[in-house]
Amino acid sequence: MANKVQVLYDFTAEPGNNELSVKEGESVTVTNQNIGGGWIEVQNTRGEVGLVPEDYIEHTSNGGGDPWSAWNTDATGGSSNNWASKPEGTQTGKNAAPDPWGSVAQGHPQAYQGPAAEYDEWDDEWDDVKSSGGYPEVESGEGGALQRGGAQGTTMKISLNKFPGFSKSGPELYLLAKQLVKGKEKLSIYMGEVGPVWSYPETQLDCVVADPKKGSKMYGLKSYIEYQVTPNTTNRPVNHRYKHFDWLYERLLDKLGSAIPIPSLPDKQVTGRFEEEFIKMRMERLQGWMTRMCRHPVVSSSEVFQLFLTYKDEKDWKMGKRKAEKDETVGVMIFSTIEPEAPDLDPIEVEQKCEQFSRFTKAMDDGVKEILTVGQEHWKRCTGPLPKEYQRIGKAFQNLSSVFTSSGYQGESTLTDAMTAAGKTYEEIAEMVAEQPRKDLHFLMETNNEYKGLLGCFPDTIAVHKAGIEKVKEGDKLVATSKITPQEKVTMAKRVSTMSYTLQAEMNHFHSNRIYDYNRVMQLYLEEQAKFYETIAEKLRQAHSQFTTM
Amino acid sequence: MANKVQVLYDFTAEPGNNELSVKEGESVTVTNQNIGGGWIEVQNTRGEVGLVPEDYIEHTSNGGGDPWSAWNTDATGGSSNNWASKPEGTQTGKNAAPDPWGSVAQGHPQAYQGPAAEYDEWDDEWDDVKSSGGYPEVESGEGGALQRGGAQGTTMKISLNKFPGFSKSGPELYLLAKQLVKGKEKLSIYMGEVGPVWSYPETQLDCVVADPKKGSKMYGLKSYIEYQVTPNTTNRPVNHRYKHFDWLYERLLDKLGSAIPIPSLPDKQVTGRFEEEFIKMRMERLQGWMTRMCRHPVVSSSEVFQLFLTYKDEKDWKMGKRKAEKDETVGVMIFSTIEPEAPDLDPIEVEQKCEQFSRFTKAMDDGVKEILTVGQEHWKRCTGPLPKEYQRIGKAFQNLSSVFTSSGYQGESTLTDAMTAAGKTYEEIAEMVAEQPRKDLHFLMETNNEYKGLLGCFPDTIAVHKAGIEKVKEGDKLVATSKITPQEKVTMAKRVSTMSYTLQAEMNHFHSNRIYDYNRVMQLYLEEQAKFYETIAEKLRQAHSQFTTM
Repeated sequence: MANKVQVLYDFTAEPGNNELSVKEGESVTVTNQNIGGGWIEVQNTRGEVGLVPEDYIEHTSNGGGDPWSAWNTDATGGSSNNWASKPEGTQTGKNAAPDPWGSVAQGHPQAYQGPAAEYDEWDDEWDDVKSSGGYPEVESGEGGALQRGGAQGTTMKISLNKFPGFSKSGPELYLLAKQLVKGKEKLSIYMGEVGPVWSYPETQLDCVVADPKKGSKMYGLKSYIEYQVTPNTTNRPVNHRYKHFDWLYERLLDKLGSAIPIPSLPDKQVTGRFEEEFIKMRMERLQGWMTRMCRHPVVSSSEVFQLFLTYKDEKDWKMGKRKAEKDETVGVMIFSTIEPEAPDLDPIEVEQKCEQFSRFTKAMDDGVKEILTVGQEHWKRCTGPLPKEYQRIGKAFQNLSSVFTSSGYQGESTLTDAMTAAGKTYEEIAEMVAEQPRKDLHFLMETNNEYKGLLGCFPDTIAVHKAGIEKVKEGDKLVATSKITPQEKVTMAKRVSTMSYTLQAEMNHFHSNRIYDYNRVMQLYLEEQAKFYETIAEKLRQAHSQFTTM
Repeated sequence: MANKVQVLYDFTAEPGNNELSVKEGESVTVTNQNIGGGWIEVQNTRGEVGLVPEDYIEHTSNGGGDPWSAWNTDATGGSSNNWASKPEGTQTGKNAAPDPWGSVAQGHPQAYQGPAAEYDEWDDEWDDVKSSGGYPEVESGEGGALQRGGAQGTTMKISLNKFPGFSKSGPELYLLAKQLVKGKEKLSIYMGEVGPVWSYPETQLDCVVADPKKGSKMYGLKSYIEYQVTPNTTNRPVNHRYKHFDWLYERLLDKLGSAIPIPSLPDKQVTGRFEEEFIKMRMERLQGWMTRMCRHPVVSSSEVFQLFLTYKDEKDWKMGKRKAEKDETVGVMIFSTIEPEAPDLDPIEVEQKCEQFSRFTKAMDDGVKEILTVGQEHWKRCTGPLPKEYQRIGKAFQNLSSVFTSSGYQGESTLTDAMTAAGKTYEEIAEMVAEQPRKDLHFLMETNNEYKGLLGCFPDTIAVHKAGIEKVKEGDKLVATSKITPQEKVTMAKRVSTMSYTLQAEMNHFHSNRIYDYNRVMQLYLEEQAKFYETIAEKLRQAHSQFTTM
């Protein structure tokens, strides 16, 4: 179906990519809507055919979703409880600092400037960055490119389908297991000052994600990015591609996800023209994710995480991989490895705690989203209209100064020099204002974005917990109808107590990290903000000193 | 004609003023469009009738002009050369600092909140502030209240109609006068370092306009404001109402306007609810006008100006008034009192100088207008969206802090206290941002506004000059056709030289004042801006110090 549409924004084609340069207001004919990856094929009035970002032209029937809506909607369309972290995006526009939270600066849509989309298919061993020129097919109906970016899913997907017949009530597998297989795995929970806590290692694991390098396969047909990951324990770097991180994420989710919220990896993303910036941003976020994982005592001490950080060679890695994939202590069975060193909890207390955590995480999710929304708007203002205004003030001073220069009047130069300097100062301020969000707001946004992702996992974790509580509540009925024995009912209550200790330990871990993270990010933000205003004040003082009182 | 219209903004009626409270989105019926003064009578759905500001409801056919357009258009509709200063207006809105340059903050129209409009009819001796409750008629087709405000006219009106038969060529009255009556008046021009300059007095005249007091007449039916004017020469205050200033302006214009740009008085203005603020603003502008007049050697030494500042009693004032009104050395005849102490100028040089001044004043007018436009926008941003955003940032921090407080986790209070404080700091910043324009931008705007008014007088002054030059150019033809004698032609050239010296002295006066004024206002602006940013930085440092690193 070919139809005439209007071009909404100027777009300059990148040579050699089948792209077509178009001008705002130009009328073009859509020749192929099924290009995918955020691209669409059009023909201009001169008969030239090429690709343009689909967001650059009027909405077409097959356009696939509003790229702006992604910010506030769950890309994965999960349950309403699954408040999901938003997909990322890169922002275009010459002077605008990139707003990496998928915002839309000044009505400029999020266009995917490059043709390369990313696949992370584990099966065919291709990954990370396709060689430019390829236009991957987008499954029809899946939505626009942004939805692609978020399609990986940002809520935690607790994979339980390894257990055939596993019912929706989930935790009964654990609650009603005849005999818990006591393996060598053991996760202890102690009573600390703040209540139940995980057992923390003496030295905290940490790692550095650095040095992204482009590699290629298939005689250069496929390229990928490899990151160097160096743990503080061995100080020996290992290399990993994004898909390895993704594999790790899936394993952690399978194994620990029922008990511990495992935040999603930074989203997969369509990339292209701004590849360098994208890689930098992804690395920063992978670092953030790894740091969070390292900080978690259960995650960091898990075999699969250790394998990821410290595998010796390819053989070691492959063997470890296979072993991890065969691990059967996954899903709710992780609770069978948990041993709280405290008396069993009353089911009522269990339920109260659970409700409290549920309320808190929901409330915090709202608070975090508010900051993200406000921050996103502030970002837009700081990179858009505000610096433009300072620039105009600066220009106005300089223009008046240059008029004054033409007066032909003696003794003009002190004033005109000073006014020109003042004008330039405001131009400098304009630049500072536009640059500043990258220096402070960025980190505030990143931290809150990370927490949004983390909080998005709690509904699932809490749901497992609530299902356990419900099962215990049904205890008497189940005994009466001979579905379970009285002994099993007692066991269930005991096991739900274990689940509650786990949730409490996890919440305490969350709180302690949260306090640390918010202290740190607020300090950074306020420090940078103060410096910013101090620098402006200094510049203004200097500009001021050039004027004379006569 | 009654028609249904939508209310655009909330409006709260002031009791006892026949006003009607209305809500945004409410539907009302216009019952009387001819109230005037920016008011309109409407009936709500409950049958209540009352007045609302006409800008608060949807535009009606008789709405009379776009109040926003006033900023960039010449309210008086003068010649295109007469770039006029814009009419004033008061701004409404609770937290918004008033933008006295007639801007519209955040799409909030300039509504005249009070019912009282001001008349300055000299004839009936009523003036200044009508008793509240009166709704003066607005001539139909004259436009909205803003246009009223500017209707007084902001270009210089050189009144020459005292001389019947005075042709459009204006200066010929002087150029071809048979005999110049040498009176006691004599205005000298010397050659100074910068070229021709007026003779400046040793001590500069200055005066203070202060202490506005409300008086009333006609048994309280009419009220007015009287300002105390105290010159530094006598240090004895005299009282003047606005209409006296206006009378002085008219006299100065008549007498000196052909040679010296006499800037308009601050505009007459519809007033009302914000009467105090209006009076303060008018006083500030009357002070500015008087200061400028005092600084001018010719104006300040003129008999009428001295009378205004130093009259001894009512009798003295009335006698002086009558005398000034009978003065016949007005219009172009002022040139007959000017005696340059320098050789006559070549007509070609005269013309070149004139062109140069014309170019400069036009260019400066553009520059000044650019600053006003940019400043107005900046004002809007600083009093509108920007503080709202800081407020929202502040609220977001505080909200998150209160969520944290609900965590039930120990050792939360340091973080939550610090985050609450940080949030409050951003709310304080919001207030500072909104207040700041009054402290710095205000003066930058006022100075530029004053210069816009002053520059608006130059086209008239220059036009008189150019007409003189044209007359001289016609000299040969006029002699050939026996319209003038050869001797008259010589006299004309000599007299145009005098006019040129006058213009040059005036330009040099203008330049010297300009350099002083812009140095001063830029210093003030930058000083206040620097202080502003320093204060913000200090507040942020303090907020920062409340966070702890663990």
